[in-house]
Amino acid sequence: MKLAGCNEASIGIFAWSTIEPAEDAYDFDWLDTIMNKLAENGVYAMLATPSGARPPWLAEKYPEVLRTNSRREKELYGNRHNHCFSSPIYREKTQKINRLLAERYKNHPALIMWHISNEYSGDCHCSLCQENFRNWLRKKYDNDIKKLNTEWWTGFWSHIYTDWSQIQSPSPLGDSCVHGMVLDWKRFVTTQTIDFFKNEIVPIREVTPNIPVTTNFMCEYGIEDLDYFAFAKEVDVVSWDSYPQWKGDSSDANFATNIAFGHDMYRSMKHGKPFLLMESTPSVVNWYGINRPKRPSVHLLSSLQAIAHGADSVQYFQWRKGRGASEKFHGAVVGHDGSENTRTFRDVVSVGSALSKLDEVVGTAIDAKVGLIFDWENRMALKEMQGLRNNYKDYVEVCTNHYRSFWKCGIAVEVIDETFDFSIYNLLVAPMLYMLKPGVAQRIEEFVEAGGTFVATYWSGIVNENDLCFLGGFPGPLRKTLGIWSEEIDCLYDNMTNNVKTESTNGLGLKTDYTAKIFCDLIHTETAKPLATFDSDFYKGQPALTVNHLGKGKAYYICFNSEQEFLDDFYTAITKKLGLGNKLGVHLPDGVSISTRTGEQGNFHFVMNFTDVEKIVCLEKAYFDMLLGAEVEGCITLSGFGITVLKETIG
Amino acid sequence: MKLAGCNEASIGIFAWSTIEPAEDAYDFDWLDTIMNKLAENGVYAMLATPSGARPPWLAEKYPEVLRTNSRREKELYGNRHNHCFSSPIYREKTQKINRLLAERYKNHPALIMWHISNEYSGDCHCSLCQENFRNWLRKKYDNDIKKLNTEWWTGFWSHIYTDWSQIQSPSPLGDSCVHGMVLDWKRFVTTQTIDFFKNEIVPIREVTPNIPVTTNFMCEYGIEDLDYFAFAKEVDVVSWDSYPQWKGDSSDANFATNIAFGHDMYRSMKHGKPFLLMESTPSVVNWYGINRPKRPSVHLLSSLQAIAHGADSVQYFQWRKGRGASEKFHGAVVGHDGSENTRTFRDVVSVGSALSKLDEVVGTAIDAKVGLIFDWENRMALKEMQGLRNNYKDYVEVCTNHYRSFWKCGIAVEVIDETFDFSIYNLLVAPMLYMLKPGVAQRIEEFVEAGGTFVATYWSGIVNENDLCFLGGFPGPLRKTLGIWSEEIDCLYDNMTNNVKTESTNGLGLKTDYTAKIFCDLIHTETAKPLATFDSDFYKGQPALTVNHLGKGKAYYICFNSEQEFLDDFYTAITKKLGLGNKLGVHLPDGVSISTRTGEQGNFHFVMNFTDVEKIVCLEKAYFDMLLGAEVEGCITLSGFGITVLKETIG
Amino acid sequence: MKLAGCNEASIGIFAWSTIEPAEDAYDFDWLDTIMNKLAENGVYAMLATPSGARPPWLAEKYPEVLRTNSRREKELYGNRHNHCFSSPIYREKTQKINRLLAERYKNHPALIMWHISNEYSGDCHCSLCQENFRNWLRKKYDNDIKKLNTEWWTGFWSHIYTDWSQIQSPSPLGDSCVHGMVLDWKRFVTTQTIDFFKNEIVPIREVTPNIPVTTNFMCEYGIEDLDYFAFAKEVDVVSWDSYPQWKGDSSDANFATNIAFGHDMYRSMKHGKPFLLMESTPSVVNWYGINRPKRPSVHLLSSLQAIAHGADSVQYFQWRKGRGASEKFHGAVVGHDGSENTRTFRDVVSVGSALSKLDEVVGTAIDAKVGLIFDWENRMALKEMQGLRNNYKDYVEVCTNHYRSFWKCGIAVEVIDETFDFSIYNLLVAPMLYMLKPGVAQRIEEFVEAGGTFVATYWSGIVNENDLCFLGGFPGPLRKTLGIWSEEIDCLYDNMTNNVKTESTNGLGLKTDYTAKIFCDLIHTETAKPLATFDSDFYKGQPALTVNHLGKGKAYYICFNSEQEFLDDFYTAITKKLGLGNKLGVHLPDGVSISTRTGEQGNFHFVMNFTDVEKIVCLEKAYFDMLLGAEVEGCITLSGFGITVLKETIG
Repeated sequence: MKLAGCNEASIGIFAWSTIEPAEDAYDFDWLDTIMNKLAENGVYAMLATPSGARPPWLAEKYPEVLRTNSRREKELYGNRHNHCFSSPIYREKTQKINRLLAERYKNHPALIMWHISNEYSGDCHCSLCQENFRNWLRKKYDNDIKKLNTEWWTGFWSHIYTDWSQIQSPSPLGDSCVHGMVLDWKRFVTTQTIDFFKNEIVPIREVTPNIPVTTNFMCEYGIEDLDYFAFAKEVDVVSWDSYPQWKGDSSDANFATNIAFGHDMYRSMKHGKPFLLMESTPSVVNWYGINRPKRPSVHLLSSLQAIAHGADSVQYFQWRKGRGASEKFHGAVVGHDGSENTRTFRDVVSVGSALSKLDEVVGTAIDAKVGLIFDWENRMALKEMQGLRNNYKDYVEVCTNHYRSFWKCGIAVEVIDETFDFSIYNLLVAPMLYMLKPGVAQRIEEFVEAGGTFVATYWSGIVNENDLCFLGGFPGPLRKTLGIWSEEIDCLYDNMTNNVKTESTNGLGLKTDYTAKIFCDLIHTETAKPLATFDSDFYKGQPALTVNHLGKGKAYYICFNSEQEFLDDFYTAITKKLGLGNKLGVHLPDGVSISTRTGEQGNFHFVMNFTDVEKIVCLEKAYFDMLLGAEVEGCITLSGFGITVLKETIG
Repeated sequence: MKLAGCNEASIGIFAWSTIEPAEDAYDFDWLDTIMNKLAENGVYAMLATPSGARPPWLAEKYPEVLRTNSRREKELYGNRHNHCFSSPIYREKTQKINRLLAERYKNHPALIMWHISNEYSGDCHCSLCQENFRNWLRKKYDNDIKKLNTEWWTGFWSHIYTDWSQIQSPSPLGDSCVHGMVLDWKRFVTTQTIDFFKNEIVPIREVTPNIPVTTNFMCEYGIEDLDYFAFAKEVDVVSWDSYPQWKGDSSDANFATNIAFGHDMYRSMKHGKPFLLMESTPSVVNWYGINRPKRPSVHLLSSLQAIAHGADSVQYFQWRKGRGASEKFHGAVVGHDGSENTRTFRDVVSVGSALSKLDEVVGTAIDAKVGLIFDWENRMALKEMQGLRNNYKDYVEVCTNHYRSFWKCGIAVEVIDETFDFSIYNLLVAPMLYMLKPGVAQRIEEFVEAGGTFVATYWSGIVNENDLCFLGGFPGPLRKTLGIWSEEIDCLYDNMTNNVKTESTNGLGLKTDYTAKIFCDLIHTETAKPLATFDSDFYKGQPALTVNHLGKGKAYYICFNSEQEFLDDFYTAITKKLGLGNKLGVHLPDGVSISTRTGEQGNFHFVMNFTDVEKIVCLEKAYFDMLLGAEVEGCITLSGFGITVLKETIG
Repeated sequence: MKLAGCNEASIGIFAWSTIEPAEDAYDFDWLDTIMNKLAENGVYAMLATPSGARPPWLAEKYPEVLRTNSRREKELYGNRHNHCFSSPIYREKTQKINRLLAERYKNHPALIMWHISNEYSGDCHCSLCQENFRNWLRKKYDNDIKKLNTEWWTGFWSHIYTDWSQIQSPSPLGDSCVHGMVLDWKRFVTTQTIDFFKNEIVPIREVTPNIPVTTNFMCEYGIEDLDYFAFAKEVDVVSWDSYPQWKGDSSDANFATNIAFGHDMYRSMKHGKPFLLMESTPSVVNWYGINRPKRPSVHLLSSLQAIAHGADSVQYFQWRKGRGASEKFHGAVVGHDGSENTRTFRDVVSVGSALSKLDEVVGTAIDAKVGLIFDWENRMALKEMQGLRNNYKDYVEVCTNHYRSFWKCGIAVEVIDETFDFSIYNLLVAPMLYMLKPGVAQRIEEFVEAGGTFVATYWSGIVNENDLCFLGGFPGPLRKTLGIWSEEIDCLYDNMTNNVKTESTNGLGLKTDYTAKIFCDLIHTETAKPLATFDSDFYKGQPALTVNHLGKGKAYYICFNSEQEFLDDFYTAITKKLGLGNKLGVHLPDGVSISTRTGEQGNFHFVMNFTDVEKIVCLEKAYFDMLLGAEVEGCITLSGFGITVLKETIG
């Protein structure tokens, strides 16, 4: 670890059957040894609670801890997360072992943070969970089943419930397209998962009130059925596991946006506080269809990308490859050869070395004036929705495309949900804001009135928080802010397009023609002004892009699914109007992005080349190249997958 | 509704939980109000029985009403048709509520027809259904299990049953390829569904003997596992739900044939009596992969196509979009905006207006001299069959291709099954008549002997009604009529073709060469004469098309799966010989079809352009254009997706 | 049968419900009749035991005989192999009926061999099987659950078992990727299947000790989950069912290798003893996606290919097509027409006639100096492995590609597993030898030291017999023999390639450039010498092909997945060095292969043309053409799909 420059290790994940090999019989000796060794060598421990998987004896003695799936089949012992979050026994057992861990290591010098469980996910449909679901519903609907009937629109298909006992969780053997029910089930699963987490940390908080708590989230867009924005409120520090599938070719430049999106989202969850990169691989993973080792330079770039977007650490799964079972071919710092004479180990050393030069960056923040709404419940609702193009409702892709326009310019973005305070931004972007929860439209209106710029797209303002359509004309409560009425929406078949012709007076410096695909929203302007129109089909001449002036602000409405080019041109114009740009003030070649962290000591500009060819960036003035340890100025050259961190002392 | 020109509404579908919110507690007030309002405004009601979905309380109290699926899993409450048609409780409950409805509204001025349940479908594998299946088998096989063993060929794989109790319905956990069993199960499901329907209408018939009864069938080809020809015998009026996926481009011309096929099939089920278009959408549906709104003109054309082929009404699902649940984005006359100022509403008005000009058409018939056999049990058997090309056995597509040749010429066709009287036709077409039920071959022979023209294809006369192969040479009992022996059949791989060379003396004016694909039947002529031969492969020179003269008629045999071109040329020649053509006596440009309804007042020619470009049709004489309200003559122009209805007074 | 030249028939397969129509009530009369008729007409019987499918009454009375699937669902009565191999009742019942058959026909003149059951396959997860699995594990791991924990690496994911009762078979509802467990389960299934077979033959061996026993294996590569090499040890004669999907076009030449591989594998299982072709079709099968009848000549060629590779018989499924059930359209000698005047029947006659001219070939052997390791457990392990390219781990394809290079030259190969004696070969080829069972590496080392030539590829020497990785550097225990260390492995995306540049001193006469795809192993030579290097990417210049000299032998290591061209050139060079070639000593045109059987009377060269065009082979001397019945010399012409059998008298 010293060779590798590692000063922190997560330990104890999935260690339950080692710590407690039989019920109430414990063995902490091995863990003591590890903790002591870490401390002796100046390495901190992120100590895990072991609830991510249970020992065989526990499942054998208390079958209730295992899940029941949506087909109502009782699961067998096996896998990782396969335990019921409602189970009183499982809650009791996890609390008990967590308390023992906390008591034993509360004063241990190695202990720096708690890593609670591991990658929470999944759901259970057992009778306990059914009962909890019903209770959750009673509470939500004020114990009034008529309210539930109204919001779930159960009159349709004769589904009017007369007793709470009649309600069952969604199932392929029962209902799976009563949208209000499905949404509430997903909300319940989020609530129940968080509740289990809260139960886990009761002894942790009691015994070690000053040790921060985290749990590792997954994937650049999170997992669809568990609302991480809600979960983030309960942890002290957000951390996530990032396994980008870098290909080592020109496609990485586009792909890098997805990862940047993830970093920005996880940072935004705690209102911009630094987060942790909990897991990443030093070389390959073993679960993609094709698992390619990282090409040279890619590991350093990928690791520092996290720092650039607000992480304060880079961690690996795993330190050493296990000999057997399902992840034995997952990358590790140390392989089966046991040697440090490997390309992978040298890559890890390079990251350790770079991080040691970036100590000043720790704790610094990112100054973002752009908020992009990526709302979890909106996403769940869009996924379940039946209509338009059932085989294309990729909210995630559309949000990423909008985000990409900013990434290309190196403009900082916060990725937020509908519950955030919008007033801190100059520009608020909300693609496909299908679901508007109570008060959101009002808060957007106030944002615009107060001078903000708002951008919305087709298929916004359609349903309330329970997936009930707004009456009286779409975009529902956003109609005034956007100044339009959407009458219907055309779904184009694959490979069909329409042409969008901009008005010469569009005022945004847009080109004359752009391509629309997939969706064309057929709207009527009310108070808005058209900036572009469709150029063919029966709606030729109808608006394709509008702007509405409201109070001191503006609200744009994009009626079509566009190619990246339009979004790039559009947001370039908008950000120019708002005076937003990258903090280095330079032009960025394709595939190069900038992220700037700011602290008391100055700005730290991370200039990253995600292409496999050399790129040149011309600086306006001199900066200190922190990795090189020297001042640079003029035009600098970034090698393929190269990165430079430029320090700019302020004042 | 008045604005929209609607004078009839289907109501009460899925209303059970509203009518009977708790067991034996009823609320008819809301329904009274609607019925009265309709009557007051001159709108008729097609009143539905509510058995299409049950209230939660019913499933909770009587779990037996829910289905058991083929894996023997008990379904949970949910969805629509998810009730056991065998359940005594469910039968009792549906009878009871139907009786109450009938008693309450028997003299109501709005009541014009009964809409029984909704889109019957599916099957149940519970122990009650198993027992009913066994009883059905006992009856079919004269209580002699040896007969069943013979017909199911159970000696194969050691399946000889010795007791009826050993028999279970087909299942992925048991048998699924004992073809006799699978066929009998599907027949049983049809019988059981109809039996449930008959049970439902007992009180209806008693209380309102003069009100006609219908139930809505689905899809242009029906649903494969429920024999609609059998079901049609039990209703007073056939009605169906048609949701064509018009694309608004040049592919619609080809696709329109499928819908025309459906209309002709449903009309033929009641021997040509007018049917009803029970459901159609005024704009989009919400369950295709891509749901495109109807382009301008398409709604009127699509609606009047039904009338053209024999419907006496056009109805919509749904009047108004619901706010929630799974069909909230399905098209409706009135959208979430609640406005009549929409393109969709105006389209509905245009249909109402057109229909008001076509009153004379009501009750008229279609004079068809061509019968096309599309036999439901043959289709079920072909689907289950293992052999030839398991991934291509599309009986439906082949029947449609044959049908298309007539549609292109505007020649009326009846789509019938094997049980119909063939003697009323001049031409009988039976593609892939794999299964010959008892007496059918004899009746075909008599048809030909009496002067009829019969057309058969490869893979005909293979099995009896229980899927047992005929011995002694294919096409089995049709061998004499067709005058050939089919020795084996070649299956071509995709993209492979053979060439078919016609004899110069073919007498049909066919071209020299056509393309064969997918199947080439290797036959020997006996009494038949070859009209064309295969031109390559080891069967070069063997017959590809034959004709057999028998009595006063002719029987053609097509040995290959052909492209549309061959069928068009072949049927053009055949119909010419028989003096059949469209009733307008005109040449039809591509994509334009004609359907003619005939009554005492004359002929009503519906000339329909299913392309998106203008088409010209040159008339032989003057006609009255009913939509225009003026006389027309000479060459008339149909705009893209345009339709003209020409009245021709007879005598 | 006489017309067809058939002198042997398999009978009684699936006859249980006919022999024992009710429990303990037997009817052998029909079987007596058949046996007697066969004997009277000089036809031998291969008499089957009926355990391949059970009568309905047996499953009804003893439900335990039916299987439980991996989801723990109890199967229903149906299908063929759907019985639990652990069931005491089923074992008792099969023994009992087998004893009756043996007693009745032990002295029958027709009886020539026992055909035990039919195509054994599948597994059962009932509680009896769970208990047997646990007992099997206890025995394997010396009743020490700690050993099991170590080998299964259960510490990962907290899976440490403390009691055997906690262990359950793999399931989608439980564990499916604990690789040691999955492998052991598959081994257990093999053991249990063989144990069932052994139980079946107890009475057979007792009553008819001199009648040989076989059971029919399936497919050219066997079925993945049942280790046929292990099973083959228990039968007297190996037999298999071969249903090649000949297409009748140029692709057959490549495809023929797969079938040849199968013949060679089944022959090798009993160390080169002649095997039987138990089932083949005279025309079509009915279960491929597209079932094409055999083109002219193909049936004779396909049948004699089996003889060429060591079979001593050719048999058909089925004699006559059944009228019903799932295989009624499977090819047969006699079709539904019942006639002998068919192309198919004439094809069968041609095979009977050819075989009658090849009596001398019976009992002769094939002299092979090349051993190719195709290890069943290695294959199971590679399939389950998670890593590299999860969507491409086709061990079978890679082994076939290596095999094809020898087939093209007409060089005899034995296809063996890791347990065989390697010392009898000059050349040992072991593609992707991922798993090395105990002692195998040592035996390979000895083979090389003693002068053998060994060829290995990337991804060899990775795990032990329980899928635990070797530590200290790959290829683990083969590192010394191969003289290299494999540090990591690059997985190329589809359509990506690298170029391999050979050293001018490669000594194999290889071309300058070859293409690498899919995998590139990044190795370091230790004692080996590079013969070629990669030409691009970050590992440009690293070895792509190496040779290591050890003792009197050589060991080659191929670092990349190659196209056929490289393998052909490489093995041509290697076999040339070793003096190996086809026994006819001729150059073979593309698509033509030779297999030579050798006996006391001389060599029998089967020269086979698997293309649809004529091929010319020029002989070095005169031979006796056994099918023609005449001497031939000089250049002979093989018609499309033609075959010649040349006898060469030795000495």
